[in-house]
Amino acid sequence: MSKFWSDVVHKLTPYVPGEQPKLDNLVKLNTNENPYGPSPKVLQALKLEASESLRLYPDPNSDALKAAIASTYQLQKENVFVGNGSDEVLAHVFQALLKHSRPLLFPDITYSFYPVYCGLYDIEYQTVPLSDDFTIRVEDYDQPNGGIVLPNPNAPTGIPLPLAKIEQLLQMNKHSVVVVDEAYVDFGTESAVGLIQHYPNLLVVHTLSKARSLAGLRVGYALGSAELIEALTRVKDSFNSYPVDRFASAGAIAAMQDSVYFQDTCRKVVATREALMAELASLDFEVLPSGANFIFAKHQTLGGEEITAMLRQKNIIVRHFKAPSRIAPYLRITIGTDAQSVLLVKALREILSQP
Amino acid sequence: MSKFWSDVVHKLTPYVPGEQPKLDNLVKLNTNENPYGPSPKVLQALKLEASESLRLYPDPNSDALKAAIASTYQLQKENVFVGNGSDEVLAHVFQALLKHSRPLLFPDITYSFYPVYCGLYDIEYQTVPLSDDFTIRVEDYDQPNGGIVLPNPNAPTGIPLPLAKIEQLLQMNKHSVVVVDEAYVDFGTESAVGLIQHYPNLLVVHTLSKARSLAGLRVGYALGSAELIEALTRVKDSFNSYPVDRFASAGAIAAMQDSVYFQDTCRKVVATREALMAELASLDFEVLPSGANFIFAKHQTLGGEEITAMLRQKNIIVRHFKAPSRIAPYLRITIGTDAQSVLLVKALREILSQP
Repeated sequence: MSKFWSDVVHKLTPYVPGEQPKLDNLVKLNTNENPYGPSPKVLQALKLEASESLRLYPDPNSDALKAAIASTYQLQKENVFVGNGSDEVLAHVFQALLKHSRPLLFPDITYSFYPVYCGLYDIEYQTVPLSDDFTIRVEDYDQPNGGIVLPNPNAPTGIPLPLAKIEQLLQMNKHSVVVVDEAYVDFGTESAVGLIQHYPNLLVVHTLSKARSLAGLRVGYALGSAELIEALTRVKDSFNSYPVDRFASAGAIAAMQDSVYFQDTCRKVVATREALMAELASLDFEVLPSGANFIFAKHQTLGGEEITAMLRQKNIIVRHFKAPSRIAPYLRITIGTDAQSVLLVKALREILSQP
Repeated sequence: MSKFWSDVVHKLTPYVPGEQPKLDNLVKLNTNENPYGPSPKVLQALKLEASESLRLYPDPNSDALKAAIASTYQLQKENVFVGNGSDEVLAHVFQALLKHSRPLLFPDITYSFYPVYCGLYDIEYQTVPLSDDFTIRVEDYDQPNGGIVLPNPNAPTGIPLPLAKIEQLLQMNKHSVVVVDEAYVDFGTESAVGLIQHYPNLLVVHTLSKARSLAGLRVGYALGSAELIEALTRVKDSFNSYPVDRFASAGAIAAMQDSVYFQDTCRKVVATREALMAELASLDFEVLPSGANFIFAKHQTLGGEEITAMLRQKNIIVRHFKAPSRIAPYLRITIGTDAQSVLLVKALREILSQP
């Protein structure tokens, strides 16, 4: 605490990301990174950027990147906003579109950055409990609100919401913004992007950190009506003219264009997930349905914190959330390679067979 | 205007950066980029980053980069904050340290992003007029305030303020934060970094976009007491966990470490500046003193907007500010190579010799 700090700083409870350990030889299944590296075409494009032209600013509007993204989804450039990772995009979304006199609604168990953004921008919010099976019940959002934000699939459960449910949510909520945070959508969840042309209040947020294997490059984007995108652009241009650097732009363009590599890696991750879910079930884990590149699982007898600590001793990192208490028994496990699944299952077998 | 927008968006007047034209063959002297590319060691470090490890998040705390910066200035890691360009750093500074019940003070003619940040974060501010010769009079800041921010050298004038004046400002203002925005300091202005150990309320902001030739990479940093840095970190961790990507980090570390290349390019830019100033004086320009990699100059008879337009027809871009009216007669000219100076002077001669 300090007299030099603005008031808001005293009240902040910052988001705590999963550990990024500086040790090698860890089986790192804690921050939902892709086990496969980016497309070779991406690496080639990135190498070309290491040049004299770095002395020049990037395009402040990221027009080429917006065009590549728009073309991927048959949208116009005016429907695309890009930023320095989807966390930055979400920050601008909260400030530009979700601060109103009525409270913002989001699930009580969800991406834990949402209440942090509300603290940063002094946004009133209300959480809506998930049902007993951890699914989002869209009927519960039929109440006065200043906006709705939810991940699909949800975090940290991984449970996908069918597209019909998203459309139902949009139907009953035409007067405020609905943000669908699709960070993990490419691993088997239905995307709401196709609904953008019908619902001017729908904003869909994507990242290149997961399915496009570019967590180290920091690129995310939002898709929506020109009306919503304009608000984000105004805030961005009042915050940082050039958030997307030359590498981020070049790498992201190449990644959006290599759809074959993208689909192939997504398919491999999904196959590994299905196999791992079966293995874990055979070890007495209850695993929630997943449309993501991670699973949320609890053991019948051993606690989540306990298993996490024991795996760590075996150089395997998964993520555990202490709060809320309803999810404390669970582990969130990122889907790695098949070889990493074998190591994980072997370690779990050893842990569970201990007296 | 839209019912979906948060109130703040309706009121924003975003910053407009200098043009980043997509044409080649322009003599681009409008956004204060370095005419020399980054150090070869930087390019080498960047090439190595184009690898499979891009699938992994960068270090959220940028510890290695902070260590490299701290070591450059004989400071501790706790005295360093890093971000996605100094514009992002400044945005966090305004939100974290400059929003108080008393108004923030800054010069009436200065970096035009400052009032934009105030709009974004609803910060009350008051501008302090420059004196008739465009210098900052620190005595004029001896009034109740919620913080002070000024560039040194100032923008867009380029006029440096002596270190003794900065210390005088700190002496008479111990109860609020003084931000010295030293984006251009390495081109011949005295830095206030050495005062950090004596003044816990001093924050110095630097960028790698100018003297380190890395505008395309987006890295900036703030130096100050651990107390001030902690406020920035809290805001950053409530906004975006990973603002500095793997390329930005690796390139910036290499740039901070190659002091020989850095000093050499700064020296060349300063020599070109001095020669250009003499040439412009001989063409009846009045040129303000500059401690930056740009100069601010007005012609005795021809107007600033007119010359800017005529240079543009000759494929030379400089920057012109229409407001406030006191600076409307001026051109802001980035220092390029000696060869670019020759082209500029030749073009000006042609323009001025027209009937």
